[in-house]
Amino acid sequence: MGEVVFRRGSEEFRVVVDEGLSLYEASVKAGIYVGSICGGRGFCGKCRVRVVSGELSSPTEVELRHLGTELLNEGYRLACQARPASPRVVVEVLTTELMKAAVMGYEPEVPLEPAVAAVRVRRALVTLDTPHRSTLESITVHLGRGAPLVNVGVLRKLASSMSKEVDVVVHRGVNEVIDVRPVGRGCYGIAIDVGTTKVAVYLVDLRDGSTIYADAFENPQDSYGADVISRIAYAMEHGVRDLRLALLSRLNSFLNGMYRAVGIGKEEVVDAVVVGNAVMHHAFLGLNLKGLGASPYEEVVRAPLDVKARDVGLGIHPEAYVHLPPLLGGFIGSDSLVGAFINGLGRREGTYLFLDIGTNTEVFISRDGDVIATSAASGPAFEGGHIRFGMKATEGAIDSVVIKDADEPPEYTVIGGGRPRGLCGSGLIDLLAELLRKGIVDPTGRLVAGSSRRVRGDGPLEYVVVDAGESGLEVAITLSQRDVRELQKAKAAIQTAIRILSRKLGVSPLEVDEVYVAGSFGLYIRPESAITIGLLPEVPVSRVKLVGNTAGSGARVLLKNAGLREELVKFRDRVRYVELALERDFQEVYVDSIYMPSGCADLYPNTFRSIKGLLKGVRFRRGASQAGFPSL
Amino acid sequence: MGEVVFRRGSEEFRVVVDEGLSLYEASVKAGIYVGSICGGRGFCGKCRVRVVSGELSSPTEVELRHLGTELLNEGYRLACQARPASPRVVVEVLTTELMKAAVMGYEPEVPLEPAVAAVRVRRALVTLDTPHRSTLESITVHLGRGAPLVNVGVLRKLASSMSKEVDVVVHRGVNEVIDVRPVGRGCYGIAIDVGTTKVAVYLVDLRDGSTIYADAFENPQDSYGADVISRIAYAMEHGVRDLRLALLSRLNSFLNGMYRAVGIGKEEVVDAVVVGNAVMHHAFLGLNLKGLGASPYEEVVRAPLDVKARDVGLGIHPEAYVHLPPLLGGFIGSDSLVGAFINGLGRREGTYLFLDIGTNTEVFISRDGDVIATSAASGPAFEGGHIRFGMKATEGAIDSVVIKDADEPPEYTVIGGGRPRGLCGSGLIDLLAELLRKGIVDPTGRLVAGSSRRVRGDGPLEYVVVDAGESGLEVAITLSQRDVRELQKAKAAIQTAIRILSRKLGVSPLEVDEVYVAGSFGLYIRPESAITIGLLPEVPVSRVKLVGNTAGSGARVLLKNAGLREELVKFRDRVRYVELALERDFQEVYVDSIYMPSGCADLYPNTFRSIKGLLKGVRFRRGASQAGFPSL
Repeated sequence: MGEVVFRRGSEEFRVVVDEGLSLYEASVKAGIYVGSICGGRGFCGKCRVRVVSGELSSPTEVELRHLGTELLNEGYRLACQARPASPRVVVEVLTTELMKAAVMGYEPEVPLEPAVAAVRVRRALVTLDTPHRSTLESITVHLGRGAPLVNVGVLRKLASSMSKEVDVVVHRGVNEVIDVRPVGRGCYGIAIDVGTTKVAVYLVDLRDGSTIYADAFENPQDSYGADVISRIAYAMEHGVRDLRLALLSRLNSFLNGMYRAVGIGKEEVVDAVVVGNAVMHHAFLGLNLKGLGASPYEEVVRAPLDVKARDVGLGIHPEAYVHLPPLLGGFIGSDSLVGAFINGLGRREGTYLFLDIGTNTEVFISRDGDVIATSAASGPAFEGGHIRFGMKATEGAIDSVVIKDADEPPEYTVIGGGRPRGLCGSGLIDLLAELLRKGIVDPTGRLVAGSSRRVRGDGPLEYVVVDAGESGLEVAITLSQRDVRELQKAKAAIQTAIRILSRKLGVSPLEVDEVYVAGSFGLYIRPESAITIGLLPEVPVSRVKLVGNTAGSGARVLLKNAGLREELVKFRDRVRYVELALERDFQEVYVDSIYMPSGCADLYPNTFRSIKGLLKGVRFRRGASQAGFPSL
Repeated sequence: MGEVVFRRGSEEFRVVVDEGLSLYEASVKAGIYVGSICGGRGFCGKCRVRVVSGELSSPTEVELRHLGTELLNEGYRLACQARPASPRVVVEVLTTELMKAAVMGYEPEVPLEPAVAAVRVRRALVTLDTPHRSTLESITVHLGRGAPLVNVGVLRKLASSMSKEVDVVVHRGVNEVIDVRPVGRGCYGIAIDVGTTKVAVYLVDLRDGSTIYADAFENPQDSYGADVISRIAYAMEHGVRDLRLALLSRLNSFLNGMYRAVGIGKEEVVDAVVVGNAVMHHAFLGLNLKGLGASPYEEVVRAPLDVKARDVGLGIHPEAYVHLPPLLGGFIGSDSLVGAFINGLGRREGTYLFLDIGTNTEVFISRDGDVIATSAASGPAFEGGHIRFGMKATEGAIDSVVIKDADEPPEYTVIGGGRPRGLCGSGLIDLLAELLRKGIVDPTGRLVAGSSRRVRGDGPLEYVVVDAGESGLEVAITLSQRDVRELQKAKAAIQTAIRILSRKLGVSPLEVDEVYVAGSFGLYIRPESAITIGLLPEVPVSRVKLVGNTAGSGARVLLKNAGLREELVKFRDRVRYVELALERDFQEVYVDSIYMPSGCADLYPNTFRSIKGLLKGVRFRRGASQAGFPSL
């Protein structure tokens, strides 16, 4: 056990960590972004910090490679490599960027076996005496595989290049020669997670597997509707073309900027993996969305696809293939599928729960080899939507809340450190949990009049989070009774999914060995709070893993190891999809799940024990659906 | 045995045929074109004739289908179906077109198993209860094969079409869905023989295998050079692009005209096979020609290719594949390779010789499974090139010659029936053979002064074929001593190839079971004459098969039966290529072959016997190379 203090400008983040953990792991626990884009695996060299005081473990070879002796001597270290070696360590965080929440994500280590590789080839000499060979043969004879496919573009290049030695870029999956080019050029892959809100892009060096660039931008399709439903509606009226082109033109200009920043040419990017939900997937390809808009929901294609970059207009090597992993269906896209996959669901003994929380929350549970999944309509509350002072996790958002005394103003932290302008998802969950613990909100979700001096209003009540004087807005930041109801509905949708899936699999949510919470939102929640309100099952906090954007890291994994693309299809075929709305007791379980933490006390024994004093007058289990929530 | 008389305008063509032969077979023997484009297989319905007198066999079902009862009652018949039923039959030839020599060719019957087929599919209904299926799955579940490839274009169509029943057009070779479209549209393939001089195009209905259109046009690359050498030279200076675009723009406008004529849309053409020599093949693809221009001759690609129509710019369905069969090498293209292949070389017991006569003459000999081939630089003499009054086989060309009396004007026929303006290849061969038989030219190729009143000149002699008064030109049409030398060189190149190949295979040219003479030129020669001058080996005339444009018919065969595409590659891999110039005695055999029929009397025993009287003073075999041909 030791203390690590991260300093960023005038801010300080303190965290107590177990021995042996790296500074990177400490930073994740402290909720501060140190710049890593490879998830702490030592690939990117971006998580540089500078030692202010205290002792750290000796520099590793990885640090020597990324930093060199000079920087090491000046106290620079990589957070993923350095471990505290004294009870207290203070380091300076050097990244000045706003948190790259959209791109961070857990990434398992996999053998580097990319689909595309450049093979250096010395042309066989053609003479009249030797067996007759075409240029193509004199080059491909070295590849040691069946005759590869070639397209006309490559043949034309081949015909013009007469150098003795060339690099032959081969896509091993389709056994196609993508390019023939001068020796020594780069070989990169690009992973793209097309989210409804954010698009995350990663550049991976296929020669060593390192992620050398990662960033995200707002999905410009936003101007056609904030959520998938409104985008489908737009596409049904005007066609999908606008959506496709909006995304592609922004994406391609983003890529061009990235190429300039990194100093590579687009022809050096020879592979791509694109993941997303079904609507993003279809819109990326320019496929009509109407099948996704109405029951019986029918996507155009669920199978994995390899499409030519030039056919979809993606600004990488035009002959490269873009791999789109399979969808499970209209409600579970390749983004959460690959997330569940890289977290090992269905591939390990034990019971695992994977949640990708968003407007729709994808829920996977596996017990040993069995995998079951569904999509819950959780709504936008955890992203700040439909909440009066809700906002996204950007600068000015309250992202954590502690209430020490029910009558005093709560303590909170603000992203970026300035005055608060609202609450993001993790702040809302913290706040609701704290209100519950203090009896200011009761388990039915009712703000209790007189429970705190900060509860105000005649008629609908509200709780004052930040007084007007402290707020970054003109007015006080509050949480209304209606806001609480919205949060309850969101968490009820997710709890319902977990309860129904686990019942179908014959397990109890309490038995789950590990809970993986994906999504950029998930990176910042406090598991204790999420358990208290009943969003997560009541498991020991150490079993909750905040895995971040696993759609992005899943896409990177598929770039690095092409064999896993097929494994993913096999995984997909084993996942049993459950349509919650078709379950007979869906309504009943849902209404029961609106209680906090739950209408089913057995699922939250410890939480119930700790809030027992608050339970008077609240009836659970029996008659839950008659309890009456007129505002719902 | 019976006589068939073909009348065309004021002309009559008589031929005696064995019993049981069709009028079409009689027409081929008579050397008259009756309009067939399917090679007499009953597919095209184009070989209509009208009975003038005599009896024919009863109408067949094929005739009933193509002609109907009304036309049958008026005496119209199909030449390929009708057989003489009386000792003499007179029929009227109805085709008014100039001979379609460029497109005619022997075509073996093959099972109809095209690479591309339209499969009618009723979409499986998607409901919430049934196993989840995407649109693609609900359609491809019926195809009964592994998950097919689909491209983005087809997926977009699929997404927009919600009809219950659709036609799914599948390329079975690459297992790709080419199109999804309303039911009932056509399914055609196009076969293209890109010759240096002429481009032949065939439209094949893939549903029944019939050839429904065939025509040819001059290769517009002619403006960049008449032969492959000058086109390579042009491309080395200016790039291959001009050649490619010249061909493609003409080809595509030709195709558009054909689509209008036949009444189909270009999207109904879903397969294509393109054959040609290496230069045509590379120029079609836009591949640099420099490897083909200098030793060691190296083509860019020899392997069979399937390229997207839109990638090469061919005006058929853009998602269709264009199949380019393999080349044997720079000197033997897919055109003659497929010709030798469909004539069964290497696939039958016995010894077979295949000749594709042109500026370069490809020669294949097979004994049982062994196949050996070469390309001989025969020059343009047999196409009328380098011959003073030589011309192509078009209107006004003398195409057959008979000399009854050495001193009298020869008898001849003229294509189109008007006044003669020159001699085409078959006319030249006939003429040379007749001059040889009459002793006007001696076996060394010398025009013999005083042998005929029609031999004139002081200094170099010439033989007057047509007097000025009969000629369609202002002057007499003659054959000069220099012209005879050109013809001798051409035939010597071919005889040399046959002699060297047969020696390497351990067979005698006299043992050849069948000789296939391909090329439009080959359709009109008189085998007797070709044997007399030593162009063909001395085998019984019945063993000589004039097979016409087998490049075109080979391409059609590959359209109809996709499995043969792989067979062709296996055939290619078995053909042993011989580079004549590397043979030690090449020069010696060549000079010996300049004699007519040959310097090797053993190869032409009967011919020598018949011209024995002419042999005085001519020394054969030994010392052939010292015989001295100063003008060569």
